Amino acid sequence: MPDLWIVSEDSFDPAKQHHKETIFTIGNGYLSTRGAFEEGYVDDHRATFVHGVFDDVPIGFTELANAPDWLPLYVLLNGERFSLSSGRVESYERHLDLRTGVLTRKVRWHSPSSHAATLIFERFASLDDEHLLCLRCSIAPDFDGTVEIRTALNSNMDNEDIAHWQCVEQGAFPSSKRDLREVTYLRTRTRATGIELAQAMRLLVSHTPSQSAFWDTQSIPTLSLTFAARRGETITVDKFVGIATSRDTTDPTDPVSMAVEHVKSPQSWESALEAHQQAWGREWERCDVQIEGDDEAQIAIRFNLFQLLIAAPRHDTHVNIGAKTLSGFGYRGHSFWDTEIFILPLFIYTAPHIARNLLDYRFERLAAARQKAQTNGFDGAQFPWESADIGEEVTPTWVPHYADRTKLIRIWTGDIEIHISADIAYAAYLYWQVTGDESWFIEKGAELVLDTAKFWASRAEWNNEAEHYEFNDVIGPDEYHDHVDNNAYTNYMARWNLQTALEVLGWLKLHTPAKADELSQRLGLSPDLLARWKEVLTQIYLPVRPNGLIEQFEGYFQRRDVDLASLEPREISAQALFGIEGCNETQVIKQPDVLMLQYLLRSDFTGEQVQLNYDYYTLRTDHTYGSSLGPSIQAIMACDVGKQADA
Amino acid sequence: MPDLWIVSEDSFDPAKQHHKETIFTIGNGYLSTRGAFEEGYVDDHRATFVHGVFDDVPIGFTELANAPDWLPLYVLLNGERFSLSSGRVESYERHLDLRTGVLTRKVRWHSPSSHAATLIFERFASLDDEHLLCLRCSIAPDFDGTVEIRTALNSNMDNEDIAHWQCVEQGAFPSSKRDLREVTYLRTRTRATGIELAQAMRLLVSHTPSQSAFWDTQSIPTLSLTFAARRGETITVDKFVGIATSRDTTDPTDPVSMAVEHVKSPQSWESALEAHQQAWGREWERCDVQIEGDDEAQIAIRFNLFQLLIAAPRHDTHVNIGAKTLSGFGYRGHSFWDTEIFILPLFIYTAPHIARNLLDYRFERLAAARQKAQTNGFDGAQFPWESADIGEEVTPTWVPHYADRTKLIRIWTGDIEIHISADIAYAAYLYWQVTGDESWFIEKGAELVLDTAKFWASRAEWNNEAEHYEFNDVIGPDEYHDHVDNNAYTNYMARWNLQTALEVLGWLKLHTPAKADELSQRLGLSPDLLARWKEVLTQIYLPVRPNGLIEQFEGYFQRRDVDLASLEPREISAQALFGIEGCNETQVIKQPDVLMLQYLLRSDFTGEQVQLNYDYYTLRTDHTYGSSLGPSIQAIMACDVGKQADA
Repeated sequence: MPDLWIVSEDSFDPAKQHHKETIFTIGNGYLSTRGAFEEGYVDDHRATFVHGVFDDVPIGFTELANAPDWLPLYVLLNGERFSLSSGRVESYERHLDLRTGVLTRKVRWHSPSSHAATLIFERFASLDDEHLLCLRCSIAPDFDGTVEIRTALNSNMDNEDIAHWQCVEQGAFPSSKRDLREVTYLRTRTRATGIELAQAMRLLVSHTPSQSAFWDTQSIPTLSLTFAARRGETITVDKFVGIATSRDTTDPTDPVSMAVEHVKSPQSWESALEAHQQAWGREWERCDVQIEGDDEAQIAIRFNLFQLLIAAPRHDTHVNIGAKTLSGFGYRGHSFWDTEIFILPLFIYTAPHIARNLLDYRFERLAAARQKAQTNGFDGAQFPWESADIGEEVTPTWVPHYADRTKLIRIWTGDIEIHISADIAYAAYLYWQVTGDESWFIEKGAELVLDTAKFWASRAEWNNEAEHYEFNDVIGPDEYHDHVDNNAYTNYMARWNLQTALEVLGWLKLHTPAKADELSQRLGLSPDLLARWKEVLTQIYLPVRPNGLIEQFEGYFQRRDVDLASLEPREISAQALFGIEGCNETQVIKQPDVLMLQYLLRSDFTGEQVQLNYDYYTLRTDHTYGSSLGPSIQAIMACDVGKQADA
Repeated sequence: MPDLWIVSEDSFDPAKQHHKETIFTIGNGYLSTRGAFEEGYVDDHRATFVHGVFDDVPIGFTELANAPDWLPLYVLLNGERFSLSSGRVESYERHLDLRTGVLTRKVRWHSPSSHAATLIFERFASLDDEHLLCLRCSIAPDFDGTVEIRTALNSNMDNEDIAHWQCVEQGAFPSSKRDLREVTYLRTRTRATGIELAQAMRLLVSHTPSQSAFWDTQSIPTLSLTFAARRGETITVDKFVGIATSRDTTDPTDPVSMAVEHVKSPQSWESALEAHQQAWGREWERCDVQIEGDDEAQIAIRFNLFQLLIAAPRHDTHVNIGAKTLSGFGYRGHSFWDTEIFILPLFIYTAPHIARNLLDYRFERLAAARQKAQTNGFDGAQFPWESADIGEEVTPTWVPHYADRTKLIRIWTGDIEIHISADIAYAAYLYWQVTGDESWFIEKGAELVLDTAKFWASRAEWNNEAEHYEFNDVIGPDEYHDHVDNNAYTNYMARWNLQTALEVLGWLKLHTPAKADELSQRLGLSPDLLARWKEVLTQIYLPVRPNGLIEQFEGYFQRRDVDLASLEPREISAQALFGIEGCNETQVIKQPDVLMLQYLLRSDFTGEQVQLNYDYYTLRTDHTYGSSLGPSIQAIMACDVGKQADA
């Protein structure tokens, strides 16, 4: 019977290397490290991302800087360096234990001149102490001779293109550099943002090395330990790495002390692992989901939960989870509505303290959201489509054309994909409703709901002819269609936001009149403004047919109807098939806006209406090559209409 | 009496570090290395650029990749690392000997715990063997104790932003890694273009080290040598580095062998230096300019000659000299008309083989120039405004706005600064006229002149009303004014190009009728086309007033006339002062197009006309903050009109 907590592979395929690095990512909510190998390969995409450590880039404004590499550990058997691309690999297996977040690799290797050994690599990012990283290498040689271990901290990392780090300093404690039981450290700094990051390394070994050396190589302090190898006797090296940044320390010029402090704390591998496992035990107790009768689904949901748990900031309210979490370079670590609509529910229901941290991130960036609204001529808070460090809009305005490098493509999402402001208000409200955390909502959540409502009221346009309010020139969640008017998702969510703001203000007036007064004053919630909110919300245009069929946006039903099923099998997205402009002219959608809307505001719709819209939009959605955000909602709504098999 | 071959500094000022790195650049026509220090500083801009080693970048398409660093050499006195930013610097001096291209630094330093030594660093890039780099460090300690030298090859270099290199391999010959007299090597590869670059390091030492170690640190192979130090006894370490790329080798996967071969060749520092000095002797014999009575001018002209000599490719016809030579990151190593109009004359008159290499670079990129013409709807060869590896246009089309990162600025020079095609033809013709290298001109030069003429004839537009040919929507050398019609420089040079092409074809028909036939056939030079050339060239509009005053472009005299003198003193360019658009509307110019034109086509103008235009345009030129290309021509034309003092 398979262990339903283990993700495994039993061979190494260089062609799948980058994909597997993502799958075997480990992390602890402070940082994540991709599943690249300790010994390194020329084409690997090795990366460690630390929350909040952003640095400037052209075009994309800012990105998470791939941190100095704590993994390097090379093994030499009688002078021959272990590598999966030389000698002979007799056996190979790798396991990620989702229950404990420990990644284990076991390789039986024969060197080019036929010295064999079994090598086991284990690593984890401590969930007990998020500033502690642990790596164990055990070597069981089949020969008498030498085993050499070289291990380093490497500041020469880049984001596959931009180099972000300057090496500021390195050294060893105590200054007697030969005492390997002590600590080697590295201090680095991001070039534009000046964030300092320190790593401190400490080794514990099973045997006394016959030779040891500290290679004080500039930017890559390295330790070399040579052991007398005896057939069948396992040599173990435990590498602990403490990590801290100037974001964590009270003295921003001294992250080294903090890194050193954390690397010195563990007594042993076993004690560090024990504390780490206990911390994971508490996580799973809160949030494991058990599925009986479907092993694949069981592992899959645990894998997904694990991915969110390792990306979730537990002690930092100034960071958020990027669209690729901390597991890859995509989207540069920027956060989107994905956090509020797709990620937050898990935490709201299982780990409210994490949900609160993520919402605090938005609350503390209200000033930037107000600035964005003001720049665009609106009131209230308009949150950025892509958000990073300080909460300014970091969606690239233009990107180079994928086919013709002399051309550019204008990216409009940062300008007009405005639904995110309602999504954030929705999440703040949901958090309150589910957790009952009244004090947080009074102190922070209410302001998120009220100030976004202000934005919506100012963004609404009165159509004199049709006698209703409109939201024109927007992009809904379905990004195959841009510059549309009256996107159903956007308009419904705006109405919800205004309606909820009025209710929240009423509730505040009843329960904490002082806070209600303070907010009313500070946000300028005059009786006139509230009257205007009511006027707007009752007259927002909602594009619904008499039979209940919702039109995704004004004019959508007039676009060309494509029989998607007839195009199967295909291996590219509908957008690639028809072109950006061509796709815009069809009814094919990247993800189902209307279903998403009915999922979020379920009580606004009858079962019959949900069914009608489900049937209509399911046929027109690019399920396979559209948005990765689509299938989850699609599956939920399939269950809603009783189509469990489809789900 | 000062040595008029020496550029010196007598103190180290961190604030001027980057400027001085440029000044103290050394090179040999194959590569250049900026004058950064061996021991390295966090904020230095250390760089080695190797001709032709381009790699991809966003926006700017391609750039010279800052090569792996061959300089690292750290000195530790009794364990304390030498640095200008610690301890006490008792004296400091640095000299670049222009006669020999040897850079020498002499520092008297006291360590924090007061161990003093005199350190001398010398370096040169051999002009005798362009694949050989030489660095000597001499340490005269004032104490008994230890002196440690650490020296490395470092593949972790980037262009202050983009990282271009992957470390492919490293090691030592022979495999016995402890024999330091032997060779340590590093093999790297550019990420996008896949150019391999190898460096091989070999040390010769004056004393037997008491300890030595090879630190096989990943990506930075390092040697550590510890010597017993005795007061007053000078320890000398000579570091030789061989360098080769896959562009140089017949087997592109084996640049290491070539680098090793070159590093093994020198017998000693003295013999390598001797061969190098002899090579420089031959250079200066050809091209030294002696100025009596003005020491500053004497050193300045030798410095300028030196800069061109170290950037000039002697054995490679597939590279050109970038606008910043090989001494800095600016313009990404791209070549402009600077080469043909400002740089080539030196080589045409003093080193024709180098001039020919540079012209061959253009000849071998005719296919790309034809492609550019064709893409734009023209015939013949239209050379790119910015050229790099393969000769396609690499001017960035858009660059981020300097003040508002969400905006872009359209760069038009790659589209419409078309005069470069005539400039290249002009240089090819000048080379022939001066050197008499008939065989080259017949084989290659003539085609450059003929095919650019084809371009001009197809680019000319007939103005039915005015009854003349025009070149509209262009940028002349003066880039303060873009999208102008009938720029005088462009139109005169186009006329020259067409006229010269007809003469060249006539000459070919007389002297090598077979080549004339072959070219006529291949380039389609039919009688009709030649008749058209004649028609165009005799009817090109030349904007000249009856009194001989040339209008820089049509309508220039109607632009606002600004009294530049009245704006003095100022510390910003006229363009910064008035804004890009504002400056466009004035008569203020970045560099004097009309003077440039009269300089190149001097015999087309009377002395009186030159004087008239000199007086008019001198007053309207932004001499101090305009183009660095302006002053040289301004000075030459000042002499022409008898104003030696102005010159």
